[in-house]
Amino acid sequence: MRYRADVRPGWEIGEISNGGYLLALAGTAMADAVGRPPLTVTGHYLTPVRPGPAEVDIVVVRAGRRFATVRATLVRDGKPMLAVLGTFGVADDNAVRRVDGDPPQITTSSVPAAQPARPDEPPFPSMNERLDVTLRPGDDGFRRNEPPGHAEIVGSFAFADGGPVDELALLLATDAFAPPIFNSGLAVAWVPTIELTVHVRAVPVPGPLRCVFRSRFISGGLLDEDGELWDDSGRLVAQSRQLSLYPRP
Amino acid sequence: MRYRADVRPGWEIGEISNGGYLLALAGTAMADAVGRPPLTVTGHYLTPVRPGPAEVDIVVVRAGRRFATVRATLVRDGKPMLAVLGTFGVADDNAVRRVDGDPPQITTSSVPAAQPARPDEPPFPSMNERLDVTLRPGDDGFRRNEPPGHAEIVGSFAFADGGPVDELALLLATDAFAPPIFNSGLAVAWVPTIELTVHVRAVPVPGPLRCVFRSRFISGGLLDEDGELWDDSGRLVAQSRQLSLYPRP
Repeated sequence: MRYRADVRPGWEIGEISNGGYLLALAGTAMADAVGRPPLTVTGHYLTPVRPGPAEVDIVVVRAGRRFATVRATLVRDGKPMLAVLGTFGVADDNAVRRVDGDPPQITTSSVPAAQPARPDEPPFPSMNERLDVTLRPGDDGFRRNEPPGHAEIVGSFAFADGGPVDELALLLATDAFAPPIFNSGLAVAWVPTIELTVHVRAVPVPGPLRCVFRSRFISGGLLDEDGELWDDSGRLVAQSRQLSLYPRP
Repeated sequence: MRYRADVRPGWEIGEISNGGYLLALAGTAMADAVGRPPLTVTGHYLTPVRPGPAEVDIVVVRAGRRFATVRATLVRDGKPMLAVLGTFGVADDNAVRRVDGDPPQITTSSVPAAQPARPDEPPFPSMNERLDVTLRPGDDGFRRNEPPGHAEIVGSFAFADGGPVDELALLLATDAFAPPIFNSGLAVAWVPTIELTVHVRAVPVPGPLRCVFRSRFISGGLLDEDGELWDDSGRLVAQSRQLSLYPRP
């Protein structure tokens, strides 16, 4: 099964389309192919992607009663750019619930991510114009060369047009913040994602998400980044983990 | 590319082959196909697998200079049983290193996982005979109906025959302990894995691994399980996360 896809301009970091946006794009085709929302989706990033037409090749590996497992490849000119594997299905809302953790505190003094800290600041990732993302005061330190010293970023996520955040938008939201390692004080340049896995745990209620992203293990030229996304009612709606390259600047 | 595989007896939990064993089996074929060790591997479990002959179908999505991305499907009688996506390559040992975390403490009083607590205890998972796994005192509470109340298990991992734990064995080690939710005090039965992702962060030095597994988010009929595996020198060698079904007993 092949879907036509349009990698739209306006979702780039620099000139390269955002990894979460691409995962949501492939995930949308996968969800359509099996008629179910995503539960767990993994993307492996093969090459930098720029805006333009593309295709999503879909193979349904198994469609069972409750879950369907799907492979997808984002392709341009016959060249694979993103390989995805996901299981789709609906969670059981009446099930046992126990949570060890709390949503991060988001204060009204949080800093809009799309507001330059200084007039001489380099241009913003274009995707920030489409998002309403704020950062915990201090967590925007990397933009002023004042990293707080922890590899952590806390903030809120919404679409600038007020559109709802559904299960597919959660795939985008897990990669819509600056890499937390920017706040570590380590010298870093670009942080390309090798692999990103998202577990969708619930459908968010209306309102901004409260998000926390952390990098704990930097070694072997690689680093992890763990994310928790909570909705406005204080419910965990997604967990993410990515493995990224740590290229020295 | 197709590999013949033998799902060997002796790696079952009950009658079902262990998920980490199957991931290592597929991962071995994938690593062979591209001549590189695993860096990040995700398996989606489609159906329970029993011992017997099988095949591993391999598609190399992209083989670059540094990394190779590979799809694999474990198949029997034309029926897919496990879908895998992985990126293979060698970490850069001279890179920057910063770690926020410590290996768990393993004491000499840790309890062998393969030693029945009571004469009337149900039979052990057969794979325990091939492993030298110990549990932190108290973390074996689930076996005596004395769960400590935390969804956590700490223990050590080695092969019973003293064989080395290489990158592929790490895939097995991430799923070789009892589910930590058994220690939560919640009523649980079987905990089938839907998806398991492993990041291989380093090659272990000789000696037992020190491992910690935790379930933090139980909701929607699903639960997570996060693992950290440290080697005998105190270096993090793997991170794992799985999404499992929470079926009520």
